[in-house]
Amino acid sequence: MYKKVGERMKIHINLKKTEDKSYDILIDSIKQINIPTKALIVTNPKVAGLHLNYLLPKLQAKELYIATLPDGEEYKTLKYVEFLLDRMFEHRLDRKSVLVAFGGGVIGDITGFTASIYQRGIEFIQIPTTLLSQVDASVGGKTGINNRFGKNLVGAFWQPKAVYIDPFFLSTLPKREFLAGIAEIIKMAVMFDREFFEWLETHRLDDTEKIKYAIKRSVELKAKVVAQDEKEKGLRASLNYGHTFAHVIENETEYKKFLHGEAVAIGMVMANRLAQKKGLLTPQEANRVLKLLKEYGLPTCYEVKDPVKFYEQFFLDKKTQESKIKFVLPKGIGDFVITADIKKDEVIEVLEEFKRC
Amino acid sequence: MYKKVGERMKIHINLKKTEDKSYDILIDSIKQINIPTKALIVTNPKVAGLHLNYLLPKLQAKELYIATLPDGEEYKTLKYVEFLLDRMFEHRLDRKSVLVAFGGGVIGDITGFTASIYQRGIEFIQIPTTLLSQVDASVGGKTGINNRFGKNLVGAFWQPKAVYIDPFFLSTLPKREFLAGIAEIIKMAVMFDREFFEWLETHRLDDTEKIKYAIKRSVELKAKVVAQDEKEKGLRASLNYGHTFAHVIENETEYKKFLHGEAVAIGMVMANRLAQKKGLLTPQEANRVLKLLKEYGLPTCYEVKDPVKFYEQFFLDKKTQESKIKFVLPKGIGDFVITADIKKDEVIEVLEEFKRC
Repeated sequence: MYKKVGERMKIHINLKKTEDKSYDILIDSIKQINIPTKALIVTNPKVAGLHLNYLLPKLQAKELYIATLPDGEEYKTLKYVEFLLDRMFEHRLDRKSVLVAFGGGVIGDITGFTASIYQRGIEFIQIPTTLLSQVDASVGGKTGINNRFGKNLVGAFWQPKAVYIDPFFLSTLPKREFLAGIAEIIKMAVMFDREFFEWLETHRLDDTEKIKYAIKRSVELKAKVVAQDEKEKGLRASLNYGHTFAHVIENETEYKKFLHGEAVAIGMVMANRLAQKKGLLTPQEANRVLKLLKEYGLPTCYEVKDPVKFYEQFFLDKKTQESKIKFVLPKGIGDFVITADIKKDEVIEVLEEFKRC
Repeated sequence: MYKKVGERMKIHINLKKTEDKSYDILIDSIKQINIPTKALIVTNPKVAGLHLNYLLPKLQAKELYIATLPDGEEYKTLKYVEFLLDRMFEHRLDRKSVLVAFGGGVIGDITGFTASIYQRGIEFIQIPTTLLSQVDASVGGKTGINNRFGKNLVGAFWQPKAVYIDPFFLSTLPKREFLAGIAEIIKMAVMFDREFFEWLETHRLDDTEKIKYAIKRSVELKAKVVAQDEKEKGLRASLNYGHTFAHVIENETEYKKFLHGEAVAIGMVMANRLAQKKGLLTPQEANRVLKLLKEYGLPTCYEVKDPVKFYEQFFLDKKTQESKIKFVLPKGIGDFVITADIKKDEVIEVLEEFKRC
């Protein structure tokens, strides 16, 4: 056997991919959630005050604990991940325990990330309570936290075990937040589904059944994209329609003036202008999107004081080192292109149009 | 289309498993490592001082940075993960950048974990410099850090992109550390490969070629186990042979008296006594293992002052809530059983034998 020595010393490690990361999203009033192990609900005082009395009678676990984080994006940090980990160890959660994210996007992001690293990963369940997190954060498995270098720069891809989207929670959502969520629904329609866009043009989201349908369609569309590109290597970029512009707007206004969905609404209008210039969108189509956004009172203009400075901020994203920006543009309604083939001048021209609102 | 409303609102998310987590382990002198992107080497001052001048001429990257962590298990904490993340953001590493873990198990664990959460995961390469990390930590994808609740309690399963096992680094390894690494090699042979055990009985690991062969065989055996059970749901537990006892020994001696491999050597002897009691191992087989461990000067006895207290510490592992301990026991040489069917009295009887060394 010793004679084997001298053969090429290279070993190929082949890992099976048997892991099942599939899960269900239920869009309905929560009936009953049974967790056969220990569970920790992660929430914030606002959501807890409004909705824990609704959730608790429906949630059974072997042992149930609650941890609250202060409310706000500024607490989505490693410090609060550590805070959650400490609670989990104190309650002696084990590898079979489950975290329950009960709140908006911030709660979902930090809870999912904490679940992904506790004892190398435990299950988590999402119960999103805002329209934005119901249509957006509940699909895709992106978790993450912020640090002084930027947003969502540290995190993991970690899929929930189940998502419960209950429209009841929307009843207490401030109207402005609700409308901002609709911007992401419109985004999905413009990118992927002309028929859904037409449905949105002819149905106002003013009752639970219609809201449920719009959430369902958005989630289905996003699920289709994510299933094909879990780790954001290509297709998934299409979800960033409006976001390239929105991020600069949010930065310039220090995340204070606009809610995320509002900035995305403006970003879509900007992207549409660029799409028109490239002959991808007719003025009529651009107008239909504009009209729909306005119907929900979403902002559609932002005063770009310095177009060149605005443009340069595209390159400050810490996640990219590339010298070319990729734009996601609608190609008619219901289809899109992702292109890096846009000249600086063309973008500046569009931004010039936004010098006055 | 609106008539669709009212249908069951349940969406099943089906994720493709196209991700390739396979990688190569090279057991040989490093010739050339080419990284086409930015890279950050993570190491400690000791390894840097001894071996960076060997590694650097062989390592090409688009941009190369070095970060050093203080040497020691006590620095494998979230605080130093944050330290690494800060360096990475300062150097503007992006999603295509690569971390290089250059050191022993501590460096491998913290570097792998940091890679797993930077921008939701980037690649890392392992260049283990101790025998233990070469045979053990280089396969399996377990990464992690310690906290006040225990060891490796926070982490991720994250596979390296490549592992370079270069025996050159062993030339400066203290003899005691080298021998402790051999304990893990013997462990693999007893569990999985009678022929390899016989080879070890007849070949002393005193030259590079034999060491390379022993590493290769250990890595192959571990790779086979991990490929079948990446996330430690069953079979992988077999790698814990000797470890259940070793952890208690390490705890009682506060990780000061024994190196990990030394504690594992004693743990194997204890497990073998239990295996004998259960009729799984003959006295002759147990003696052969004992003899091999002794040949390398490994400790084979630990004075159990209070067997009952020792036994109770099995249940303090934060990772388990189960009331039954699973023991990994050899079944002859080259095979094993994992059993929860061991009475407390039987274990105590074995521990009583170790009251005097």
